[in-house]
Amino acid sequence: MVGGSVPVFDEIILSTSLMDQVLSFQDVSGALVCQAGCVLERLSQFVEERGFVMPLDLGAKGSCHIGGNVATHAGGLRFLRYGSLRGTVLGLEVVLADGTVLNCLTSLRKDNTGYDLKQLFIGSEGTLGVITAVSLLCPPKPQAVNVAFLGCPGFAEVLQTFRTCREMLGEILSAFEFMDAECMQLVGRHLHLACPVRESPFYVLVETSGSSAGHDAEKLTAFLEHTLGSGLLTDGTVATDERRIKMLWALRERITEALSRDGYVYKYDLSLPLERLYDLVSAVRARLGPGARHVVGYGHLGDGNLHLNVTADAFSTAVLDTLEPFVYEWTAGQRGSVSAEHGLGFKKKDMLGYSKPPEAQLLMRQLKVLLDPKGILNPYKVLPAHA
Amino acid sequence: MVGGSVPVFDEIILSTSLMDQVLSFQDVSGALVCQAGCVLERLSQFVEERGFVMPLDLGAKGSCHIGGNVATHAGGLRFLRYGSLRGTVLGLEVVLADGTVLNCLTSLRKDNTGYDLKQLFIGSEGTLGVITAVSLLCPPKPQAVNVAFLGCPGFAEVLQTFRTCREMLGEILSAFEFMDAECMQLVGRHLHLACPVRESPFYVLVETSGSSAGHDAEKLTAFLEHTLGSGLLTDGTVATDERRIKMLWALRERITEALSRDGYVYKYDLSLPLERLYDLVSAVRARLGPGARHVVGYGHLGDGNLHLNVTADAFSTAVLDTLEPFVYEWTAGQRGSVSAEHGLGFKKKDMLGYSKPPEAQLLMRQLKVLLDPKGILNPYKVLPAHA
Repeated sequence: MVGGSVPVFDEIILSTSLMDQVLSFQDVSGALVCQAGCVLERLSQFVEERGFVMPLDLGAKGSCHIGGNVATHAGGLRFLRYGSLRGTVLGLEVVLADGTVLNCLTSLRKDNTGYDLKQLFIGSEGTLGVITAVSLLCPPKPQAVNVAFLGCPGFAEVLQTFRTCREMLGEILSAFEFMDAECMQLVGRHLHLACPVRESPFYVLVETSGSSAGHDAEKLTAFLEHTLGSGLLTDGTVATDERRIKMLWALRERITEALSRDGYVYKYDLSLPLERLYDLVSAVRARLGPGARHVVGYGHLGDGNLHLNVTADAFSTAVLDTLEPFVYEWTAGQRGSVSAEHGLGFKKKDMLGYSKPPEAQLLMRQLKVLLDPKGILNPYKVLPAHA
Repeated sequence: MVGGSVPVFDEIILSTSLMDQVLSFQDVSGALVCQAGCVLERLSQFVEERGFVMPLDLGAKGSCHIGGNVATHAGGLRFLRYGSLRGTVLGLEVVLADGTVLNCLTSLRKDNTGYDLKQLFIGSEGTLGVITAVSLLCPPKPQAVNVAFLGCPGFAEVLQTFRTCREMLGEILSAFEFMDAECMQLVGRHLHLACPVRESPFYVLVETSGSSAGHDAEKLTAFLEHTLGSGLLTDGTVATDERRIKMLWALRERITEALSRDGYVYKYDLSLPLERLYDLVSAVRARLGPGARHVVGYGHLGDGNLHLNVTADAFSTAVLDTLEPFVYEWTAGQRGSVSAEHGLGFKKKDMLGYSKPPEAQLLMRQLKVLLDPKGILNPYKVLPAHA
């Protein structure tokens, strides 16, 4: 997405793929310690056999390394339920720029002795040190998963549905994703997936994960009855069997694929205050007019994370100039983030100023100089060259 | 506990108590923004009126400031359920040593633009900057709370009960506290609180918080039937009404009070691997022999957090020398933390080396010099003088 791991100029790639061993697993606490090159999917299988799940799940799980997940502070599909890696990473082993091995690889949930140094390296995209081992807290595996797919008459109703969802489903809510009508049209046209509910301006996918299939289905049904009755929804359907759950998830997960079949895609990954999240999509749609094929909005609404995508016949600087810096300035105006989960890498480093004030950029630069005085760690990434 | 906020030598106290305003609350996401001097209990009331709870709760809630909670990375009673402040704090405003205002006060759940600077200040006990405002994510308020109080025949059974609890109660488990038989004796003797279950070597308090009272009680009953039937428990009782819930919590919460009535108290707040957690209590008991009145172990077992307390007729250097550095060395041998939730402050700063290697201490010192070159922020705290 942002070229954080792509070598540019004189950079050399350092691979941890041979460091792929699980070092320990505590089956009471769920603390997993492993080397940085372990593939996420393999770790998932390992802990699931022991009654736990990884606290993160991504589309790229079949190839991504846990060290890279931590270095980029990956978000993904379980963020709403298990929170950020800043809470679930218990310890790290990191090699510093001068070759020092910084061993903070403990498995303690609580440790208030001095500064929490591992936080420096989470999300620093390899620019402050090289993560070589990770200790993570795995939550117990849920016994039951259910999915509801809903139609909403407007974005205000999407937000109100989210609020009601948190109240009525509480601790079993594990995903709240949304997509607009244009997304559904593209998924239908290019992938021939049928819309499972009445045609609506917005669609919402709600997932629950809990310890009792019966209880969870009961809660989901009560929630659906309440929201359908109160005019928040145009329609809704529930899936409890795995095949149908996968079918409903496909509508959301395959949007990217449908977009890529529609033409050239301009992609933005933004965090915005929930109340204003969709206003940007409408603003971009109005601004581009017939200059774009489609302007769509979808994403992890529960996390305030909007994926704004624009498709066009081909790449054009005219469209790009209409989009940028407009999208970044609009986001900055709402104190949003111009990179919610994908980081800055090489392509977005000059956008840092849209989400961080000069004082913060200065301190970031000082940290970089402190930890990597010779600038040998992922040198052309994250921080703007001119800062 | 550790004198982190007590002025020593030439220090001057800086109070934020007049900075007590709530700045904003987003009732869809639950994001609260407030000034650093807000009292935790007042914030709790504020968000509870709006259907949310604070992600942390402490015995000191009636007087502690949210800024101090964040600066000390406070743990407390909701840690098991809602996790650490490193995950629930969304943003901070901090005044740096040179007077610069570092504004990272956003309310975004996801933001991967550059380094997460706020993490530097969480848990730094005021030594790197002065927190002036906080943005926090509040979870929805649970609809139902239940408590079970259990007797266990041994510590292995306490651990197995915890494991079963996580499996069977999953997402509704909100506290798992333990205390040993000596704790119960002291609570009985000094506070006249009756043990609600058969006398046992260990006791466990399990709390559930969920969105359906009926479902939660059903799960708790099934869990109790299963564990009683499998020999993990000697006895158990469940409370669903508020009065009895408070009564059961009092047995755990008033241990500190009972200890202080028993004599002079030596206190340790440690994180240890669950499997070895109680071994330290047994080791200290054997080591002290008749030198102590009581050696007790209790705490937030779900978080791996042991409170080891020793009572004696009066303070004696002989007892202290028998306890220290033994307790710290034993903890270091297990890669535990010599201060799980209370920080280092003034009294424990020289213990840092027991939980952090020299490379980590050096980096901490470098961060301190970078952010506070003149050493004006809480100068004699956290870092050892000789480092």
